[in-house]
Amino acid sequence: MLYQEHGGEIYTGDYRLDFSANLNPLGMPDSVKAAVRQASELADRYPDAQCRELKRALSEVCRLPEEYFLCGNGAAELIMASAQALKPRRALIALPAFSEYERALKSAGCAEIRYYSCLRSRGFRIGEDILDYISPDIDMVFLCNPANPTGLLTDHELLRKIAEYCREKGVLLVLDECFNALLQDPAQATLLKELPENPKLMILRAFTKSYAMAGLRLGYAVSSCRELLLRIRAGLQTWNVSLPAQLAGIAALKERGYLERAGKLICTERLFLREKLSAMGFLLYDSQANYLFFEGPEDLAERCAEKGILIRDCGSCRGLAPGCFRIAVKRREENEALCACLEAVIREDKTPSAFELPAEGRAQERQFR
Amino acid sequence: MLYQEHGGEIYTGDYRLDFSANLNPLGMPDSVKAAVRQASELADRYPDAQCRELKRALSEVCRLPEEYFLCGNGAAELIMASAQALKPRRALIALPAFSEYERALKSAGCAEIRYYSCLRSRGFRIGEDILDYISPDIDMVFLCNPANPTGLLTDHELLRKIAEYCREKGVLLVLDECFNALLQDPAQATLLKELPENPKLMILRAFTKSYAMAGLRLGYAVSSCRELLLRIRAGLQTWNVSLPAQLAGIAALKERGYLERAGKLICTERLFLREKLSAMGFLLYDSQANYLFFEGPEDLAERCAEKGILIRDCGSCRGLAPGCFRIAVKRREENEALCACLEAVIREDKTPSAFELPAEGRAQERQFR
Repeated sequence: MLYQEHGGEIYTGDYRLDFSANLNPLGMPDSVKAAVRQASELADRYPDAQCRELKRALSEVCRLPEEYFLCGNGAAELIMASAQALKPRRALIALPAFSEYERALKSAGCAEIRYYSCLRSRGFRIGEDILDYISPDIDMVFLCNPANPTGLLTDHELLRKIAEYCREKGVLLVLDECFNALLQDPAQATLLKELPENPKLMILRAFTKSYAMAGLRLGYAVSSCRELLLRIRAGLQTWNVSLPAQLAGIAALKERGYLERAGKLICTERLFLREKLSAMGFLLYDSQANYLFFEGPEDLAERCAEKGILIRDCGSCRGLAPGCFRIAVKRREENEALCACLEAVIREDKTPSAFELPAEGRAQERQFR
Repeated sequence: MLYQEHGGEIYTGDYRLDFSANLNPLGMPDSVKAAVRQASELADRYPDAQCRELKRALSEVCRLPEEYFLCGNGAAELIMASAQALKPRRALIALPAFSEYERALKSAGCAEIRYYSCLRSRGFRIGEDILDYISPDIDMVFLCNPANPTGLLTDHELLRKIAEYCREKGVLLVLDECFNALLQDPAQATLLKELPENPKLMILRAFTKSYAMAGLRLGYAVSSCRELLLRIRAGLQTWNVSLPAQLAGIAALKERGYLERAGKLICTERLFLREKLSAMGFLLYDSQANYLFFEGPEDLAERCAEKGILIRDCGSCRGLAPGCFRIAVKRREENEALCACLEAVIREDKTPSAFELPAEGRAQERQFR
């Protein structure tokens, strides 16, 4: 197994393609690159600690009041800061999940982390039984939609029910929508509209993925609960969002049609990859996101890495087992290169039995933590 | 009084010159700007979470092992993170000081913050009596050298004694050397050499000031205590230092002679400003840093702001009183513009008694908290 705490760990080897990070396949918009170049001349000044202009732009795009927004040095900073500021005694994570939730809760001294594990036998979907896990003694729930690494969308009515249930029970729902903007229909999947009526809901968003600007670090939290945002802000340093990130964010929000173009490309290419990978015998799950989640031979990521392509080995993720992988959906040429690499790996398996499609029966024996 | 939590708050008005932020008067080196432009093409990837190349460069420049370094999104992030990770019950701050120390301690739930107040009657110098404040029930001491906002250097032998005393008493000394690199003789004033022998010493440094790159956010902590750095790192998100900041830092460390040139310019210009301000009747303190600290009429900053020049009103800083100001030492033309502005403000005082040099006698009556 290729041990990776996260995707995008390209600094430990020489890789020609990185499918382990889930970024917009169109890359960074030219306007965002231009904003960073502009920042090179302006960055001798402190960034605006309040991110005023960026928040104004977010407010317009999301059609929510400016005071609903808190900007961060990537959404990852806000995950950490919210756990540390709110210090939940008990928290719930829907698994499988981004490992930073657990890392943040542990660093905040959370006494008890409970898990709702999406079952492989149900295709890793969140079911209505998650409501049973949301008891009033829970302080905070982390849930990601579309989920990461599976790419699955939670049924919208169920998601609304979960948010409503959290509000009733006084449990804060941190809903990670970092991959929302690259869905085919982002508006249909978001709970942004629920925010004004639900002070126990906080939504996380990132420019990282949507605008392929992971290196710039920019994310934001949205909530109608002023006190909540103030508490989180109090635990952050004064100038947490850099000037290049602020200018890049403002430029990105002025883009028209970029996310839609990316969404269409992702749809086409996800289908292309699905068909190719299915034909190779991999077991695919129903991702609606800009990445695909599948099962294959346990050493797949290692062997792709040897061939210069990085894919995300999810074998060490809590709630999963060795043999689980995630790949980004990229552009056709890149996707073809990945497919060629995967085919080569399979061909190398001299003994046909070395790679078996993980059947339901066998899978039960594998340890899905 | 002009209320400012920090210097560099240029986003609330239209200012032609900002003397409130203490940056290298030479501005950002061209190589750093070029690195940011280069980053505009590379920032679609995640930054190296370990800052490997940057740490290698720091290790060479500081002649200390790579594992001594922890990089942050500005030194301000590391101030916040160290307080939050170590959760001191009792802490000591040498006053007057950067307000982020107190903010960090409060956000970390520090039960008792004690203060060592530098006395105006002793020219705001730290005296040997600070040792009486370093009792074993203190967990953490924040001390800045040269001090901010006064610019005073603590006597080097006393500083070594303080560090040694902290080591003996098991008290962590967080020594903020963010303004060290712009001193006339940085090597003489630093305690970097003490680090290998003193695991209770952690030094903070920033590229912000030294290379005038406040907008990029890059600072670092240096300590020989591996466990300490790991604890602080555990409370930080995975990708806390942006890609532009990492590339800018690497480029900055390759600069030769830039800091020395800045140091010489600052010496000349500090003297120029000292003489001008003294002649105008302001009471100056003995700053050795790239900024000057002085006393003047309480409304000075407001009135300069009306004329388009921002200076730092330190009147609301703990340990100081209204009528205390800090100005950056900039280039001659800018310094002349500031002097002209200050002269105009003084001239406007129709009644000669409206501005009186704060004499020792009167000053005793003013409230130096």
